[in-house]
Amino acid sequence: MYDFVFHNPTKIIFGPDREREIGRELKDAAVGRVLLVYGRSSVKQSGLLARVSDALKAEGIEFFEHGGVVSNPVLSHVREGIALVRQNRVEAVLAVGGGSVLDEAKAIAVGVVAEVDVWEFFTGREVTAALPVFTVLTLAASGSEMNGNAVITNEETRQKYNIGTSHVYPRVSILNPELTHTVSPEYSAYGAVDAIAHLIEAYFTKQPGTNLQDRLVEGLILTIMENAETIRDQPDHAQARASMMWAATLALNGLTPAGVGPYTFPNHMIEHSLSALYDIPHGAGLAVVIPAWMQWYRPQNPGQFQRFASQIFGLHDGEEGIVALKKWFSSLNCPTTLQEAGIAAADIPLIRDNAYDTAKLWEVDKLYPPESIEEILQLATR
Amino acid sequence: MYDFVFHNPTKIIFGPDREREIGRELKDAAVGRVLLVYGRSSVKQSGLLARVSDALKAEGIEFFEHGGVVSNPVLSHVREGIALVRQNRVEAVLAVGGGSVLDEAKAIAVGVVAEVDVWEFFTGREVTAALPVFTVLTLAASGSEMNGNAVITNEETRQKYNIGTSHVYPRVSILNPELTHTVSPEYSAYGAVDAIAHLIEAYFTKQPGTNLQDRLVEGLILTIMENAETIRDQPDHAQARASMMWAATLALNGLTPAGVGPYTFPNHMIEHSLSALYDIPHGAGLAVVIPAWMQWYRPQNPGQFQRFASQIFGLHDGEEGIVALKKWFSSLNCPTTLQEAGIAAADIPLIRDNAYDTAKLWEVDKLYPPESIEEILQLATR
Repeated sequence: MYDFVFHNPTKIIFGPDREREIGRELKDAAVGRVLLVYGRSSVKQSGLLARVSDALKAEGIEFFEHGGVVSNPVLSHVREGIALVRQNRVEAVLAVGGGSVLDEAKAIAVGVVAEVDVWEFFTGREVTAALPVFTVLTLAASGSEMNGNAVITNEETRQKYNIGTSHVYPRVSILNPELTHTVSPEYSAYGAVDAIAHLIEAYFTKQPGTNLQDRLVEGLILTIMENAETIRDQPDHAQARASMMWAATLALNGLTPAGVGPYTFPNHMIEHSLSALYDIPHGAGLAVVIPAWMQWYRPQNPGQFQRFASQIFGLHDGEEGIVALKKWFSSLNCPTTLQEAGIAAADIPLIRDNAYDTAKLWEVDKLYPPESIEEILQLATR
Repeated sequence: MYDFVFHNPTKIIFGPDREREIGRELKDAAVGRVLLVYGRSSVKQSGLLARVSDALKAEGIEFFEHGGVVSNPVLSHVREGIALVRQNRVEAVLAVGGGSVLDEAKAIAVGVVAEVDVWEFFTGREVTAALPVFTVLTLAASGSEMNGNAVITNEETRQKYNIGTSHVYPRVSILNPELTHTVSPEYSAYGAVDAIAHLIEAYFTKQPGTNLQDRLVEGLILTIMENAETIRDQPDHAQARASMMWAATLALNGLTPAGVGPYTFPNHMIEHSLSALYDIPHGAGLAVVIPAWMQWYRPQNPGQFQRFASQIFGLHDGEEGIVALKKWFSSLNCPTTLQEAGIAAADIPLIRDNAYDTAKLWEVDKLYPPESIEEILQLATR
């Protein structure tokens, strides 16, 4: 155990139909004017947007719409949202959607109260304020609903960078697992991979000797795996969708790394370059990167890989655990090589350089020099 | 999975020496005058109280002392604290001690802003406000440092009753595991039993089919057990004390029962009568009640008892799991029968009636009629 501060003030309201409570939550927080951020057509077609709008109207809350958020949300659209908020002087941002929508809402919340361009916060400037963020979640994956992170892609510079700040923890997040029943098989699988990725970054890269946190991680991974399989076979299985949703939230809400000491996020570091350069889904990119990174990293922490193999797959050998996880990703129809993700091996130098820029920004460039990143990417071709 | 609301806004600051930060935390919260609540001599002798006082003085925070809180804190002393606060118009309550001190601080925080006597809140009146509570914890056991519960004994009526309200979640709790190194072997063991008790109440009494939460509970129980054994053999084992402290916090911070649906707290219900009537340590009383209650309850949920036996002890039979847990309590030198706790079997009717009053207050009197409570107490004599 190492020193830590844990402070997660997000209120989670979980269960079918509970998006109807969002109006009251905003009113309780004295919000009278809100920016409503959402993605493409699905939230309109499903009737969710209408239900949320009704909940706002019922409490007399004025709202302004900012739709059209894309997967791997882009900086230009964030800036449009900021302009809209400034025009209409709203008091909070309400995201209705998956991780991309939540992340864009957080970026807008930060950018609107700043005197500098919002991208500065993604390249190192400290966030010191933000509008309050509220969310209605439609996808089990990113954990953004209960943390202070947001990832945005600058499509001009092809950089996918993040902020992490206490100022954008959502005040309230509404998790209705029924909203995830219609998520496509692909995105359901990518969500599971993303949640597992959030858990294993610290699990493998921290120091040894934190049994408590290891057990929490293993319990969550087993939960995510069993429910991902159920969802693959029965997409509208209510219990599996509900367990997956809460497990994905717990996978990145600060609980599991609290007390484990320093750790790194290398799989995300490399994957962000894949989705920045090729606009592939984040979870698909992770399914490619993770098995390769695990192979590359295993000699640095063989005991933990053996533990992983044993606790997750009942296997004795660390290498076998990696193979089993890769097979499991395939069983969910996720790509597990660059080629399967539609990326040519010839692009490896380009990806390497992009990821190395992130390594420098995250101050892990000593651990991940260009040649190491290239080695990992080479392993991702097999 | 069932509907739930999870909202735990307590900020945890964990690590050696971090009590020195309490002054700054109070200042950040704009607190200028605070009531300092503590127990007997140990916090003075250890120098902890002096360090906390220095931290307050360094930030110019005025404080008033309310020492002398006893184990199983009593209503009369709570009322004295309330009178002191009213005299001095403080803005917050700072508890320095174990669960008893924290609980009394919370009761004072509720009572001081109320127009009625504080005991009314322990017998059913809803809490609607409280002074902010801050804590520096010295014992791994109650979980009070990260929840909205407080238990107080009315020594006139011999009732040990509780409140549970969002208003008394500590704003900040400082957990320095080194402060627990000098806790006696007895109280270290009782703390472990208490933390396990918090985990198993919902684990056994909820509905089936919540694998996620079951795994979290099992991971925490295994952590508590392995560290309790280490602490028994090496009381100043820093890693074991640290893991125990954080595990005990997580055992009752709302995490593990979130989503499990309705559940009951029968072991605490019966134990509260033991400590109300005989002033025995809460953890000792729990070590007596739990094995008896488990034997009595097992037929109502045999599958979960089998799971417990398997996951915690590697045994196949539910009954064997109960025997193993009872033996484990004994291995920590905890009493596991009424007689070992110094309570005569002839007193069972008295205890039964006292516990049944709590059953009525908690609205579980249909599940626990007097004859059932008596049966459980009879099992606790063997």
